[in-house]
Amino acid sequence: MRQDYYEQLDTISDDLVRLTRLVGSAMNLATQSLMDADLRLAESVIAADADVDQVSADVEQKCSDVIALQAPVATDLRIVIGALRISASLERMGDLAEHVAKQARMRYPSVAIPTEVRSVFAEMGGIAEAIVSKTGAVIASKDVGLAADIARHDEEMDRLHRELFTVVLSPSWKHGIESAIDVTLLSRYYERFADHAVSVTRRVVTIVTGEPYVEVSLAER
Amino acid sequence: MRQDYYEQLDTISDDLVRLTRLVGSAMNLATQSLMDADLRLAESVIAADADVDQVSADVEQKCSDVIALQAPVATDLRIVIGALRISASLERMGDLAEHVAKQARMRYPSVAIPTEVRSVFAEMGGIAEAIVSKTGAVIASKDVGLAADIARHDEEMDRLHRELFTVVLSPSWKHGIESAIDVTLLSRYYERFADHAVSVTRRVVTIVTGEPYVEVSLAER
Repeated sequence: MRQDYYEQLDTISDDLVRLTRLVGSAMNLATQSLMDADLRLAESVIAADADVDQVSADVEQKCSDVIALQAPVATDLRIVIGALRISASLERMGDLAEHVAKQARMRYPSVAIPTEVRSVFAEMGGIAEAIVSKTGAVIASKDVGLAADIARHDEEMDRLHRELFTVVLSPSWKHGIESAIDVTLLSRYYERFADHAVSVTRRVVTIVTGEPYVEVSLAER
Repeated sequence: MRQDYYEQLDTISDDLVRLTRLVGSAMNLATQSLMDADLRLAESVIAADADVDQVSADVEQKCSDVIALQAPVATDLRIVIGALRISASLERMGDLAEHVAKQARMRYPSVAIPTEVRSVFAEMGGIAEAIVSKTGAVIASKDVGLAADIARHDEEMDRLHRELFTVVLSPSWKHGIESAIDVTLLSRYYERFADHAVSVTRRVVTIVTGEPYVEVSLAER
């Protein structure tokens, strides 16, 4: 019975790591679809979000089963409750990847972002990939040593987000209001994606340390 | 002991209803601060978000205590797990009210929104108030008859959100890119606020019906 119990907790942790891979891959492909105005790729990202939703629902079911059958307490209970919140954050990160893909689809066959901000979005895509992959490593290992790294990625993402505001508001912006709004919303999706990764990491830290979790407002968004 | 148990579940439900009041009031005051460029009011909304975060953390602690001490199963367990997710949504609604207030503060002493969209934002504020108050009623009564009403409010919010896009993209828009971005982001905060209210209501419905909860993607945002 106890053996089953720890296997169940491991399965939940594996599911969460799998979710980080799914949403990491979704954001990666969404970024590509945005860069290349690749409609088929965008559609595939949008369709794949149902898998993220399903795995997230499975995690909730498994957490519920563990609670009902095993009555976990102390650290184990914190792990289960943490898993519920973490899966909700990861589910939301999947939505944000989907939003990026929808924006790519909406502007197809045009590219949704002007050439001069391509490199910034490529960088944001790279940071999104790095942050979610490290988040997966934190969940898998419970080694919170990567938290500082993840915070740094998030700061870098915030900086790029602010940079894009400067670009679209500069007098040299030649692409009009619609494109400025596209860039702002897209930028916000990446920035929120990173915020959720930070929030997941903070959640793992509180599981490890036993501190109560209180949401903090992250930087201006 | 059983008496205590149901009292504990009631306390959690009361906390969630209290959260709906807190975030409803926050969005209401944030809207006012936006309309009147009222810095002090905006500051008070921003400061008050800590209370929302704290009540949300309290709910999590209470849910954790109930699970550890009472080992709820079946419907009771669904209520507790639902409460965890609902408090996370309400916490996020509080953040969105805070974002509106921060936008008002950022543009102070100017009014962050041009005169011609004032009435739309007034309407959005009114819908936000109505939707969160009905959400509180659904949580308190578990009477899901209001769900259709809440969905209608959400549709109306989506319509206003799309209307604002049309306004800022019309050739007659005279307020430049920065103001167009302000309007778009603000509009998105209201629209997301309503989405979360729908998600909370769906959650209560699944508690009542016993159906598993799978996140659905709401309208384009």
